[in-house]
Amino acid sequence: MRVVGTFAGARSLRAGITGLVPTMGYLHEGHLSLVGIARERSDTVMASLFVNPLQFDDPSDLDRYPRDFDRDAALLELAGCDVLFAPPAAEVYPAPPLARVVVSGLTDTMEGPRRPGHFDGVVTVVAKLLGGLQPDLAVFGRKDAQQLVVVARLAADLSMPVEVIGGPTIREADGLALSSRNVFLSGEERRAALGISRGLMAAADAAEAGERSGAALEGLVIEEMSRQALDIEYAELADAADTARLLVLDRPAFLAVAAGSGRTRLIDNVWLKPDGTADRGARLGRPSVLYGGGD
Amino acid sequence: MRVVGTFAGARSLRAGITGLVPTMGYLHEGHLSLVGIARERSDTVMASLFVNPLQFDDPSDLDRYPRDFDRDAALLELAGCDVLFAPPAAEVYPAPPLARVVVSGLTDTMEGPRRPGHFDGVVTVVAKLLGGLQPDLAVFGRKDAQQLVVVARLAADLSMPVEVIGGPTIREADGLALSSRNVFLSGEERRAALGISRGLMAAADAAEAGERSGAALEGLVIEEMSRQALDIEYAELADAADTARLLVLDRPAFLAVAAGSGRTRLIDNVWLKPDGTADRGARLGRPSVLYGGGD
Repeated sequence: MRVVGTFAGARSLRAGITGLVPTMGYLHEGHLSLVGIARERSDTVMASLFVNPLQFDDPSDLDRYPRDFDRDAALLELAGCDVLFAPPAAEVYPAPPLARVVVSGLTDTMEGPRRPGHFDGVVTVVAKLLGGLQPDLAVFGRKDAQQLVVVARLAADLSMPVEVIGGPTIREADGLALSSRNVFLSGEERRAALGISRGLMAAADAAEAGERSGAALEGLVIEEMSRQALDIEYAELADAADTARLLVLDRPAFLAVAAGSGRTRLIDNVWLKPDGTADRGARLGRPSVLYGGGD
Repeated sequence: MRVVGTFAGARSLRAGITGLVPTMGYLHEGHLSLVGIARERSDTVMASLFVNPLQFDDPSDLDRYPRDFDRDAALLELAGCDVLFAPPAAEVYPAPPLARVVVSGLTDTMEGPRRPGHFDGVVTVVAKLLGGLQPDLAVFGRKDAQQLVVVARLAADLSMPVEVIGGPTIREADGLALSSRNVFLSGEERRAALGISRGLMAAADAAEAGERSGAALEGLVIEEMSRQALDIEYAELADAADTARLLVLDRPAFLAVAAGSGRTRLIDNVWLKPDGTADRGARLGRPSVLYGGGD
C-alpha cells in the first residue's frame, strides 16, 4: 500500500477502475467492509484519511475525535487497500475555502438542523475528494444514512462521473452499530446504548410483519430507547430519496435514530423497503478491532 | 469535430491533454481566440455550448439571449475545436439542482450584488463542466474579469486538477469589446458604448504614465463614459486576487466597468500590473463575425 499526502500524488496512482473509501480514521470493521466492497469492484482501491475540521459543528468534538494513524494504515493494508491518501490540512485547505458546496432540502431534517454547518462541511470535503481524486466509484456507509443520500445527490447534481455506493452497517455481536465514537462509552453507557439497536430491530421486525405506519415504527424505537438512560434526539422514518419524514412506509426509506449516551452522541438506522424488507446490517462474531483486538 | 450531448460521451472523447472552452454560444472572435489558446496547449480541444438558465437573474434576458447553433458549430470547427459538448438542459439539470456551489467574498462586489444569484449559477454550472468533463485546462475570457477570478478560486478551493487560464479581451477595431450582446445595439447605442473602451484606454494610458490612485483611474473612465448616453453602474479598480476595491494600484488588478446602452448591459475592463503595465486586449482589423461576415 502506498501512502500519499497530495491530491496529485494520489491521482497519479489510479490504474483501471478506481474505488475510493473516504474516512476520518480510527477505523473499524465498518470501514474495512467498505474497503472490501471497493476491492470487489475496483482495480485500484484508495482510502482517504482526513479528519475534516469543516464538518465539526463542535470544536471540542474535533479535539477529542480519536486518532491512530499507524493502526489505521495497518488495517487498511490488511483489508486490501492499494493507496492511502492522508493529506495534511494545508493540502485540503491551502487557503480559507471561499468555495463551498451546499445541498439544500435533503439537509433540512434530522442531522441537518441538529448539527449546524455539519453537512456543508461534509459536502464540501466530499466534493474535493471526488473532484480531486476522480475515482470511478466511492463507497460510503449506510450507517450515515442521511449523509449517503446527500452525497449521492451531490455527485449526481454536480454531474460527477462517480458511482456512489452504500455499504451495510456493521454491528457488534450484541447489535451496537460500530462507530469510532464507541471507544468513549463507559460500560454503563454502552449497555444503555444497546436500547438504540434493540429499538431499531423491533421496528424492523414490525415492518417485516406488516407494519407500515411511520408513527408506529418510530414509536417502537422510542419505546425501547426510553427504557434506557439515553438522551433521545429523534427517531424518524425518512424517505430514502429526499430524507423527508414519511408517514407511511410506501417507498424505500430508512428509520434513523440519534441519541446521546453519557457525553457520546450516537446515530443508527435500518433501511426499509415498501414490502417491509429490512436491511439491518451485519453482525460481527467477535469484538471489534476498535477495542484492541485487531492489530 | 464531434458534437455530443452527454457528459459521458464528451468525456470518452478526451485523448491526451484536454482543454475546455465553456461558452453560451453566439460565438465571436473572443470565444474563438480562447479556442486558439486551448489548441496551443492541448491534444484535444473541447468547447461547451450551453445557455445556463441558472445564471440569468432576469428571465427576459435569458429569453432574448441570442442563439445560432449551426453557425457556432461551423466557427468552432474552423477554429480547431475537436469536440463540441452541446447538452440539452435535461443532461445538465436532470433534477432540480439541490447541490449548489457558492464562492463567497469574491462575489460580494461589482457584478455580484447587481445580478443576484448570477455567480451562484455560473459557479454551479462551471463546477459541473469541470467535474463532469474533467479537462486538464479550461480557458475563460479576461473580459469577464470577476468571473475569471471566481472560477479560478472555485477550481482551487475544490481541489480540481484543472488549470484555469484567462484569455485576452478581443475588441472591434474601434475598441468596443466583443460581446454576444453587441448585436442588440442600435447604431446610436453602439456609438455611446464606445465611451466605455475609450475611458478604459484613457485609464490604461494614465496607469502606464504613472497614475496609481484608484479614484483617479476610476475617475478617468467615468469622465469619458459620462460624455455619452450611458447608464453607468460602476467603474472599480479591483484586486485581481480577491476582487476587493483597491485604493492604490500596488498589486495585480483590473479596472472594471458595467454600463447600460439602451436596453443592453455591457461590461468591459483592462488588467493592470503594479508597474502600470496594462492588458488592453487585442483589436480586430475588420468587423467581427458577429455581424454576419464569418460564416
